[in-house]
Amino acid sequence: MQAEQLVKELKSILGEDKILHEKLDLLSYSYDSSFKARNNRYVPDVVVTPTSTEEVSKVMRLAYEHGIPVTPRGAGTGETCGALAVNGGIVMDLATWDTIEEVDVENMQVHVRPGVVHAELNKHLAQYGLFFPPDPGSSAMCTVGGMVANNSSGLRAVKYGTTEQYVLGLEVVLPNGEVITTGGVNSRAIKNVSGMNLTKLFVGSEGILGVITKIRLRLWPKPKARGILMAIYDDLEAAPKTVLDVYKAGILPSGIEILDSSAIKAVNEFKPEINLPDAEAILLFELDGNPASVEWEGKEVSRLAKQRAAKVEWSTDPKRMAELWQGRAVTASAAARVRADGSRIFAGEDISIPLNKVTESLRRIKEIGKKYGIGVVNYGHIGDGNVHTAPVINPEDPAEVDKANKLIDEIHRTAIELGGSTTGEHGVGAVRSQYARLEHGAALDVMFTIKKALDPKGIMNPGKLLPEEGNNHAASASTGS
Amino acid sequence: MQAEQLVKELKSILGEDKILHEKLDLLSYSYDSSFKARNNRYVPDVVVTPTSTEEVSKVMRLAYEHGIPVTPRGAGTGETCGALAVNGGIVMDLATWDTIEEVDVENMQVHVRPGVVHAELNKHLAQYGLFFPPDPGSSAMCTVGGMVANNSSGLRAVKYGTTEQYVLGLEVVLPNGEVITTGGVNSRAIKNVSGMNLTKLFVGSEGILGVITKIRLRLWPKPKARGILMAIYDDLEAAPKTVLDVYKAGILPSGIEILDSSAIKAVNEFKPEINLPDAEAILLFELDGNPASVEWEGKEVSRLAKQRAAKVEWSTDPKRMAELWQGRAVTASAAARVRADGSRIFAGEDISIPLNKVTESLRRIKEIGKKYGIGVVNYGHIGDGNVHTAPVINPEDPAEVDKANKLIDEIHRTAIELGGSTTGEHGVGAVRSQYARLEHGAALDVMFTIKKALDPKGIMNPGKLLPEEGNNHAASASTGS
Repeated sequence: MQAEQLVKELKSILGEDKILHEKLDLLSYSYDSSFKARNNRYVPDVVVTPTSTEEVSKVMRLAYEHGIPVTPRGAGTGETCGALAVNGGIVMDLATWDTIEEVDVENMQVHVRPGVVHAELNKHLAQYGLFFPPDPGSSAMCTVGGMVANNSSGLRAVKYGTTEQYVLGLEVVLPNGEVITTGGVNSRAIKNVSGMNLTKLFVGSEGILGVITKIRLRLWPKPKARGILMAIYDDLEAAPKTVLDVYKAGILPSGIEILDSSAIKAVNEFKPEINLPDAEAILLFELDGNPASVEWEGKEVSRLAKQRAAKVEWSTDPKRMAELWQGRAVTASAAARVRADGSRIFAGEDISIPLNKVTESLRRIKEIGKKYGIGVVNYGHIGDGNVHTAPVINPEDPAEVDKANKLIDEIHRTAIELGGSTTGEHGVGAVRSQYARLEHGAALDVMFTIKKALDPKGIMNPGKLLPEEGNNHAASASTGS
Repeated sequence: MQAEQLVKELKSILGEDKILHEKLDLLSYSYDSSFKARNNRYVPDVVVTPTSTEEVSKVMRLAYEHGIPVTPRGAGTGETCGALAVNGGIVMDLATWDTIEEVDVENMQVHVRPGVVHAELNKHLAQYGLFFPPDPGSSAMCTVGGMVANNSSGLRAVKYGTTEQYVLGLEVVLPNGEVITTGGVNSRAIKNVSGMNLTKLFVGSEGILGVITKIRLRLWPKPKARGILMAIYDDLEAAPKTVLDVYKAGILPSGIEILDSSAIKAVNEFKPEINLPDAEAILLFELDGNPASVEWEGKEVSRLAKQRAAKVEWSTDPKRMAELWQGRAVTASAAARVRADGSRIFAGEDISIPLNKVTESLRRIKEIGKKYGIGVVNYGHIGDGNVHTAPVINPEDPAEVDKANKLIDEIHRTAIELGGSTTGEHGVGAVRSQYARLEHGAALDVMFTIKKALDPKGIMNPGKLLPEEGNNHAASASTGS
C-alpha cells in the first residue's frame, strides 16, 4: 500500500486528529537516545495515536491485511531503538492513552492503560499508601506500557525485582487485531496458575508479539521509613565484599549503587561543590521498611561496611540523605560532560554481571577503554550486577565512532564471557540482537518458533529483540518512503 | 509401537535398572491424591528414571519419533492428575535425579536437578544463610522440578511470591529431544532482559512444553527473626478487614492464614487438646525480618487486630509460636476426619479469590455444601486469597460421589464468578481444564498456538492444562495397554 493510501485508510478508521504524517512530525518519531539512532534516522510512514482497544485493533487488522510493520511506542525514552520503525510502516504512539482506570485498593491492584507515566502513577497511588515498586531512572517520563514491554527495573530491583513480578494480567491486541486478556478474563486474583503463563511471555517481549493495551498491576504497601548509607573505599575489591556481607547478614537493601573512580572523577569535575572524596569506589545503600527495621539495618550495615571501607556515613534525615545521594543523582549528567568536545553515547550501557564478577568487569572495561583511547564512566546497580557504562566520545569524528563501535562490542562480549548478559534492564531493541545466538544458543530457535506462531506475517515491531537470521519472514514497509 | 518393543528400546537406551514395567510398579504410578485419580486408574505403559540430560533427550527422541506420550513426574504429590499418564505412554520419573549441583553463594543462586526435594534444599541452604522462599504444604516430599512445572507456592506467597519469581534459568529438553537453556546459556546474572521470556513460559506449564532438567534459582537471605500472631473473630466479615488494615499500615506479613468455623470445629474434634475457641474465624499472621522489625510489626499488627478481633495473642517464643500454629498445622488432617464414614476429597480444593471477596466465597461455599448435604472445611492463605476447601464424603457411595462432582463444579464456577481462579497454586492438570475457556477466553487460543508450535505431535503430557477442544492433535499411546 502506498503511504498516501495508508494515511487515508487510517484517517477513516481513527479520524483526522489521531494521525500524524507531516514530515516534521514523522522526524520527531525517528530517533531515541541510542547511539544507533544518532547515526541513523528511522522515519515512519505514519504515526497513529489510538486511545481505545478497538482503535488499536482496527489499526492492527489493517496492518495485518496489508503486511505493514507496526511499532508500538510509549514515551520513547528507550536507548535501544525499540520504539523506532527501523523497517518503516506505522508507529503506534500509546503515550496519550494514559488513563488510570481503577485503583482497586482492597485487592492491592491498579488497572492502567499503557500511556500512564510511572511517576504519575506512583504519585496517584501514594494517597492509598500503595506503590508500584520498580523504579527506572526515566520514571518522570517513561510509560508503564513501555516498562511492561521492556520488563524495566532500576535502583530497587535488588529487593523489589523487576516489572514482571507485578504484572498480574494484560490486555493484548494480537498482530491480526484479535484481543486477548492474559491472567484471566475477569480476574482480580493475586495468585492464578490456571493456564499457560502468557502474561510473563508478553512482559519484556518488546512489542514483537502484540500491542499491550491494558495492564493489571499488583501493588505493595508503601514502606514508612528509609535511610541512606554511604561507604567510601580505597580498594575497589572491598566494595562488593561489603555487598555480600550485607546479604549474608540477612539484609536485603532496596538498592545498592556503585560509583567507581571514573564516576567519582566525573561528578567532581561536573559539580565541584559535591566534593566526593578521591576514592576507588563509593557504595550507596538504600534501606527501607518500618522505622524500627530501618534503624536496626542501618546500624548493622554501618558495622559491616566499616570493616572494609575507609569511611561510612548513615542517615535517615531527608536533607542529609539527598546530599549523600547527590553524587549518584548527577552521575549520568556528569558522565555526559567529561570531555568538552565529547558526549556520552548510549551503547553497551546496560550490561548485567554476576555479583562476584562486578569488579572484574569494571577493571576490564577500563582496560578496553584504554585500548581504544575512549574514556568510560562506570556506575550502576551493584546489588544486582547491573553495570551502567558511559563511553564519552566526539560523535562527529568518524574515527572515534568506529573505535566506539569496537569498544561497545567488546563490552557486550565481556559481559557474556563473565556469565552476564548484554542487557539487564534496557532491553535488546535493534542494538543487541546480534548477540542473541551467543547468549541463548538453541533457545533462540524456540523464540523464533513462538514469534512465527504468534506473528506469522512478521509485522509486529520487526527488527527488534530477535536477530535477522530468523527474521527473514519479517515484514518491511511496502510504502518505500 | 507395542509396549513390549517400547520397553526393549528404552532398556537399550537407559539400561535395565532405569526401566519399570512390571504391573505392580506401573500401578504405583497410576494415581495421585486427586479425587479423579481415586475414581480412575491411569496405568502407564512404562516408567523411566533418567538421571542425565542426555538420557532424557534420548527418551524424548524415541517418543517423538513414534508419537508416544511422555508424562514427566516429580514426587507425585500433586492433586490434579498432573503427573499421571492419562493417555498412557511413558511416565518419566525424575525424583531420583536429585543433585544439588552448586550453591553459588556469592551470586545468591543454586543450580539443581529436578528431583531435589524442597525441604532438603532449604536444609542444605541454611548453612549459607540463604533460602528458597516458596513454601508448599508438601515441602517435605515435593520436588523442585514439580514446583517449577506447577509454579507452586504456599503460605509465604503474600510476601515472597510464587516459584516463578525465583527461577532465573532452566535447562529444558524439548519434545523432539533438543536441549535448550533459558535465561542465558552460561548466565549467572540476576537481571537479564536479553531475550523472550522463555523461562517464565516454562514455569507453570505443567510439563506440556518440555521436560525441565535443570533449574537455576535465585535465593534470598534468610530472615533472622519470626513471630506469630493469632486473632480470634466473632464475626467472619471482620477478619479480612484486619488483613487490609495491616497492608494499609505498610506491613507485608510472610503469611496470613484463615480457619473459618468449619475448620475450627474440625480441628477441635480431631485434637480436643488444641482447644481452639468457638469462633467465626481465626487469623494467623506470620511476620519475619530482622528482630527489631518483627518486634515493631508484631506490636502494630496486634494493635490493628485488637480493633476488630475478640482476642489477640502475639508471640516470638518458638514454643508458643508452635502452639499458636498448631490449629493450622493439623487442619488438613482434621478435615479428613470430620466424618467417621467419610474422607476428604481433593477436588475444587485450591480456588483463588480476590481479597475483597474471600468472606463471600466462604459463605457461598457453605451454602453450596448445604445444598448438596456435604460438609466442607475451609481454610487457606487469606493474605493472597487462596482458599483451600475440603469436601468430606463417603467415596464408596455413588450418590455422594455424584453430588460431590456437582459441588466441586459449583465451587470452581463460584471462584471464576467472583473474579478469581479455579486454582491458585495446585495447577490445572486433568481436573480443571474444562474451565479454561471460561477463565481465559480468546487467550486460550494463543495457548493452543504455542502448544502446537512447540509440541507439534502433542506428545508432552497430553490431557493436561489445556482442554480437549484444541487437543485433537494430542498423541495417545499407540501401545493400547
